[in-house]
Amino acid sequence: MHAIAIHGGAGTLSSAQLTPESDRAYRAALEAAVRAGFEVLDKGGSSRDAVTVAVQVLEDDPLFNAGRGSVLSANGLHELDASIMDGRDLAAGAVTGVRNVRNPVLLARLVMERSAHVMLAGEGAEEFALRQGLEPVANSHFTTERRQRELELLLEGKKAAGREALMGTVGAVALDSHGNVAAATSTGGMTGKKWGRIGDSPIIGAGTYAANDCCAVSATGHGEFFIRAIVAHEIAALMRYKELDVVQAADEVVMQQLVRMGGSGGVIAVGRDGRIAMPFNSEGMLRAAMDSRGLFVTGLLRD
Amino acid sequence: MHAIAIHGGAGTLSSAQLTPESDRAYRAALEAAVRAGFEVLDKGGSSRDAVTVAVQVLEDDPLFNAGRGSVLSANGLHELDASIMDGRDLAAGAVTGVRNVRNPVLLARLVMERSAHVMLAGEGAEEFALRQGLEPVANSHFTTERRQRELELLLEGKKAAGREALMGTVGAVALDSHGNVAAATSTGGMTGKKWGRIGDSPIIGAGTYAANDCCAVSATGHGEFFIRAIVAHEIAALMRYKELDVVQAADEVVMQQLVRMGGSGGVIAVGRDGRIAMPFNSEGMLRAAMDSRGLFVTGLLRD
Repeated sequence: MHAIAIHGGAGTLSSAQLTPESDRAYRAALEAAVRAGFEVLDKGGSSRDAVTVAVQVLEDDPLFNAGRGSVLSANGLHELDASIMDGRDLAAGAVTGVRNVRNPVLLARLVMERSAHVMLAGEGAEEFALRQGLEPVANSHFTTERRQRELELLLEGKKAAGREALMGTVGAVALDSHGNVAAATSTGGMTGKKWGRIGDSPIIGAGTYAANDCCAVSATGHGEFFIRAIVAHEIAALMRYKELDVVQAADEVVMQQLVRMGGSGGVIAVGRDGRIAMPFNSEGMLRAAMDSRGLFVTGLLRD
Repeated sequence: MHAIAIHGGAGTLSSAQLTPESDRAYRAALEAAVRAGFEVLDKGGSSRDAVTVAVQVLEDDPLFNAGRGSVLSANGLHELDASIMDGRDLAAGAVTGVRNVRNPVLLARLVMERSAHVMLAGEGAEEFALRQGLEPVANSHFTTERRQRELELLLEGKKAAGREALMGTVGAVALDSHGNVAAATSTGGMTGKKWGRIGDSPIIGAGTYAANDCCAVSATGHGEFFIRAIVAHEIAALMRYKELDVVQAADEVVMQQLVRMGGSGGVIAVGRDGRIAMPFNSEGMLRAAMDSRGLFVTGLLRD
């Protein structure tokens, strides 16, 4: 049994905005990413590799708020966050506030595999990236016309920092045929971000968590609420100690706890048994899943 | 019933290093901090205020690796982290990598109370501090001769980045007479810190967690392990879902889970019932506790 699920953010679009063309474009992009990850699993590869590849595809696609296509901070720069965790040994890596790393998820993975640390920030993280041989890119590599327009509108006060600005993220969770789960998350943060704000995406336990005894989780939503609810680890704890299954645990956190707090968004999660949960309490969550029993789904809004 | 516990770091000293003079100095400093926090509680004040005051006293004391007396990063600068959480409403605030904020715990609290965010980093966090009227201090404000010598020895290769370098932190947890718990943690990080490394102290869920339905926790130890084990929130989850009491839950995480992973350090925790737990798996943990039933203890090494 192997399985993978991915997300491309929650609250990114509403039914009013979704044209048949953008519907097709999002589904095609999600399918490309989920297939890339699934192929790794299908060849007997690790969940660690599968989530890395899937997130890398999403980072490279300008449709999503991660890597290329990321939103712009108030200072006109892209400041990117990412994290990864391997459920086999609870190894983890994360980076925050990087500006010149093409694929933040790859840097998070290098932090996990080649440093004594879990989390590196800003210029220090860039320095580590150089040492590891990652070729730097200009910050403008990440820029798209759409994101520039969004920042301009926000700074002119013509657009509120609404859900779209807050909840763009990408992520992946996987179970491989060796029984190991892994999770990864990557984001450009929020449009017009100030003060070096860090959301839940690079926070192990909040945006990303994986442990072989229960599940792997990647979250997307209003990051402040997701940090305060320690969303990813809370789902794991409900499985471990309250003996909920992955669907019940993810539902309890996303549809009950977060709703009570006022935190909108969703998660993707895969249990150690390969079951997939993709609950969200927002209008939409870009998502896709595949497993070795023939499951293949993509979704944008509520079914 | 009200109660408070504080810590001044784990692994900061070994029995071989502890002279009668330093024993007295540490105990006096711990007593001053725990009494300052307890006084707030005794007057009917909030746990939020009590942990803020106690941590501020520890930050201002050059004996501890937080605020004044913080260790130096490899770049010769102090880069400070802090976090705070209020169990009443799960409000939280954190800062990482600040260089010119006298009391990082106060800035974390301002992030919690006066921003829409939970976590701010680096220069952005400094900018927010200025806006909030915190008078900046020169980075040299934090410097002591002892920490300069430690960095020099480390850079000359004459001293390994051992436990002392890794595990200096201060923190406080409290239950107030209104039934609200809170936790706060502050650190100068690790001597010779590179690459913008972030430890567990500013990570909500790892170094700091508080929720009225179970407990408040502040951790100190080898931060990378504490992040991967989501220590503070794991203790809360064991109380919530496995119905352990605060002593059992803190023991399970510190003496079992962390030991299995190889992560040394400890935590202080207070349950909603006012019971205090202060387990550590390292040689020592600077600690003190007081409650309204007359408890008063200070401790440095194992009893």
